[in-house]
Amino acid sequence: MLWQIIGMLAAVLTMFSFVPQIVKVYKTKSADDLSLGMLIQLSLGVFLWLVYGIHLKNAVIILANSVTFLSLSLLVFFYLLYGKSGKKI
Amino acid sequence: MLWQIIGMLAAVLTMFSFVPQIVKVYKTKSADDLSLGMLIQLSLGVFLWLVYGIHLKNAVIILANSVTFLSLSLLVFFYLLYGKSGKKI
Repeated sequence: MLWQIIGMLAAVLTMFSFVPQIVKVYKTKSADDLSLGMLIQLSLGVFLWLVYGIHLKNAVIILANSVTFLSLSLLVFFYLLYGKSGKKI
Repeated sequence: MLWQIIGMLAAVLTMFSFVPQIVKVYKTKSADDLSLGMLIQLSLGVFLWLVYGIHLKNAVIILANSVTFLSLSLLVFFYLLYGKSGKKI
């Protein structure tokens, strides 16, 4: 039971880990210090985890990586909007 | 075999995903746009994955999360060094 809680906590924390970053970029309208390489590498990796999870029919892998992939996509969108060419306030 | 390659590719991509971000922060000496909330939440989540992996005796979970935890620790160190109070070049 304790181990299930630890596993679930780990999954929830990592699953929603980009939410604070999305909020920060949205609030500051600034994303210059973020690495596009990191965002692309992570998005591709998480997408492959999702594909792999679908193959394994593993609901936890599918759910966790769907949430992460969606939040990363939003972050990439904000990066393109507010990055180098975006307006700094 | 194809699925093993997809799984391994997913693991390697996500495992080393913070390397480009570390290189960028180190080169620009700037980390203001990074969210400390994201870094703390991710570090804690990845650490719990590591603990959970040790409990499961799963080498892949242990290896992947060790690498991510170490790179995140380095990123947090650089954030504290070059963040708000750090020098911008």
